[in-house]
Amino acid sequence: MRLRRKAWAADWLVAHNELVITQDKAVALKGQWQSVFAKDQPIYIEIGTGKGQFIIGMAKQYPEVNFIGMEIQEGAVAVAGRKAVDDIAPLPNLKFIYGDGAGVDTYFAPSEVSKVYLNFSDPWPKTGHEKRRLTYKSFLKSYQNVLPVDGELEFKTDNRKLFEYSLGSFANYGLTFDKVWLDMHNEDPENLAINIETEYEQKFKVKGPIYKFLGHFTD
Amino acid sequence: MRLRRKAWAADWLVAHNELVITQDKAVALKGQWQSVFAKDQPIYIEIGTGKGQFIIGMAKQYPEVNFIGMEIQEGAVAVAGRKAVDDIAPLPNLKFIYGDGAGVDTYFAPSEVSKVYLNFSDPWPKTGHEKRRLTYKSFLKSYQNVLPVDGELEFKTDNRKLFEYSLGSFANYGLTFDKVWLDMHNEDPENLAINIETEYEQKFKVKGPIYKFLGHFTD
Repeated sequence: MRLRRKAWAADWLVAHNELVITQDKAVALKGQWQSVFAKDQPIYIEIGTGKGQFIIGMAKQYPEVNFIGMEIQEGAVAVAGRKAVDDIAPLPNLKFIYGDGAGVDTYFAPSEVSKVYLNFSDPWPKTGHEKRRLTYKSFLKSYQNVLPVDGELEFKTDNRKLFEYSLGSFANYGLTFDKVWLDMHNEDPENLAINIETEYEQKFKVKGPIYKFLGHFTD
Repeated sequence: MRLRRKAWAADWLVAHNELVITQDKAVALKGQWQSVFAKDQPIYIEIGTGKGQFIIGMAKQYPEVNFIGMEIQEGAVAVAGRKAVDDIAPLPNLKFIYGDGAGVDTYFAPSEVSKVYLNFSDPWPKTGHEKRRLTYKSFLKSYQNVLPVDGELEFKTDNRKLFEYSLGSFANYGLTFDKVWLDMHNEDPENLAINIETEYEQKFKVKGPIYKFLGHFTD
């Protein structure tokens, strides 16, 4: 979702450019991402990290993984960054990129990323905007470019039309389906127990089903 | 769903063996199915035809297609057959097979069938019963065996777990996804306008979403 422009955001981002990495710096870090983290460990990325609740929650819950949240909206990535800084303990396994999701494979080298998360992505409902959906085949290609063989893609949304579209896009691209949830807040307690909610999910899970997909690339 | 045993069914089926074809006769008709119909035209089959409302409705709506409803339950196929006979006009484009869905490729020759329908199939919810689900890969193989390249598979269910499972089974088998509906009675008026409801669907469409899949085999 689109946020109002935040007057403080630009300055804040400049002051915290170690935590929130600019697009230019991200391109320069291609193949070198472990250097920005305290420990050499698998990197999971979220594309469209919004205000960051998911990726911050994940970074806390899984210290054995390095997380990177990508976000194109200045206001959102600044809020996310500030949330992470305000946290009691600094998180040595969390970074953000203030940049475009279309650039995944300009930021990361082949196999540099172990898992890709998409959460409540913009549905771009108009047929003419299909190519902008983060589950469109050209995006899937860019994720595959940075993942190893068997690299995972996880996707949550409450948008029925986007999920319907995405299932077809995943299948027709050749992604292997590991599991599909068609109402994840009312089924599979095991999955729910490990679920980290996004801000959006927290608000919309009572209004209708949240859909989830887990799959992996095979070549 | 399972029906009570119907005392009249066995005799009725013997008396109407031109309409409801036995398993043995179906095997003998392999490659010769056009001979049982008034016109040479594409054959669409429904596996697990239940009490027949769907396939009878389809046969009325699409006289340019020959329809065959397969059903393993004696009581159900007899009810379906009787419904078809009771109809005002006889339907020259409708037959039933009283037989096992596992036998699709023992009844039909390669490319003899143009489309396969599965409607509200038994969910067989236990993991150990996965192989009995009509969307399990061995069944998909048997459908592919009787369909041409690009032959279609259409599947409706209200059972969330079965649909979740089936989406994965379809994708991982290599079926191409044409369209997925996650709440077909509350979306896509164009699809709804041509929808023929099954008895079960009529009853359960108000209790929760009806899911639908349309896809095709590609080799």
